[in-house]
Amino acid sequence: MGRWEPDARGRLAKAALDLYSERGFEQTTAAEIARRAGLTERTFFRHYADKREVLFAGSPEMQHLFVTAVAGAAPSASPMEALAAGYDAVSGFFADRRDFARKRQAVILQNAELLERELMKLASLAAALAGALRERGTATAEASLAAEAGVAVFKVGFERWVSPGEERGMAQLLRGALAELGSLTGGRLSGGG
Amino acid sequence: MGRWEPDARGRLAKAALDLYSERGFEQTTAAEIARRAGLTERTFFRHYADKREVLFAGSPEMQHLFVTAVAGAAPSASPMEALAAGYDAVSGFFADRRDFARKRQAVILQNAELLERELMKLASLAAALAGALRERGTATAEASLAAEAGVAVFKVGFERWVSPGEERGMAQLLRGALAELGSLTGGRLSGGG
Repeated sequence: MGRWEPDARGRLAKAALDLYSERGFEQTTAAEIARRAGLTERTFFRHYADKREVLFAGSPEMQHLFVTAVAGAAPSASPMEALAAGYDAVSGFFADRRDFARKRQAVILQNAELLERELMKLASLAAALAGALRERGTATAEASLAAEAGVAVFKVGFERWVSPGEERGMAQLLRGALAELGSLTGGRLSGGG
Repeated sequence: MGRWEPDARGRLAKAALDLYSERGFEQTTAAEIARRAGLTERTFFRHYADKREVLFAGSPEMQHLFVTAVAGAAPSASPMEALAAGYDAVSGFFADRRDFARKRQAVILQNAELLERELMKLASLAAALAGALRERGTATAEASLAAEAGVAVFKVGFERWVSPGEERGMAQLLRGALAELGSLTGGRLSGGG
């Protein structure tokens, strides 16, 4: 596997994001990423399947943390309280990745293929969260609604967290958005029977 | 443009959905769809750019109706009330298309590429609804949250509407899901300050 390369994976990720931001995702090659990181192309492919993978490598761990926290919330917690426990868990995951997340968001919004993959990732997250809520005893229909709304809140809170100049922490923004949704939907609608 | 073909477009759409349901989307060709509809392949391509287009041809009209209804809701309506006016408008659009929508949903859930396009369509709808809410005077952050949550409710309510055996109307199910979201998010959460 060649000589020792301290934090090769992290260096490659940083170099990739810098290049995607400077030149655009399409215009960047794996060889260029490796060169910027002071590593070889072969090393790049030991760590990432392709240059797209750099942007989504953290997704499975993030989803696992989210779902595990929902599953492990107090039995007395409501579905939205359980989802809020998930928000706290992913906020810990993202805490020291804000600069990376900001650059990543900008790159993804400029590329339809990346955006599609991001949306699929969020849909997969919603399905997994609905499953975790059902495991906790939430009825199927309610679990789907809570999970989809929970992911909508996550998406909006995340966008706020990466917006320029925003300094509040992710947990605060996510819980804030959830509380805001409660105000938006509370008590002023005619029901559907 | 050849001889007169009564409702060629509708016949092609029905034939396409029947074939996608029977054989799968990938295994169906435009020529087969045309043959099933008793029309020529050339006629198919006068009505649809490709076989995928059959599944998404109604999306722009649906989005237009939705956004126009939100924009046209009473000035006193809250963001979620304006979105509920949008639900009523799209429910009218879908009223006589339930069988088509049921088959379409099953086809889309079985094909990753179609699902990606569907998710992009919903993301585009959320962006357009947020724009309509901002035009009504809703603050940007609140408009994004309301629109994303409104689309989450639409997605779940739509899934309920196409679920087997469900006979209630779409407007009732969409407004019911929105009221349910109000109950789910109302009053039991610690805020994010």
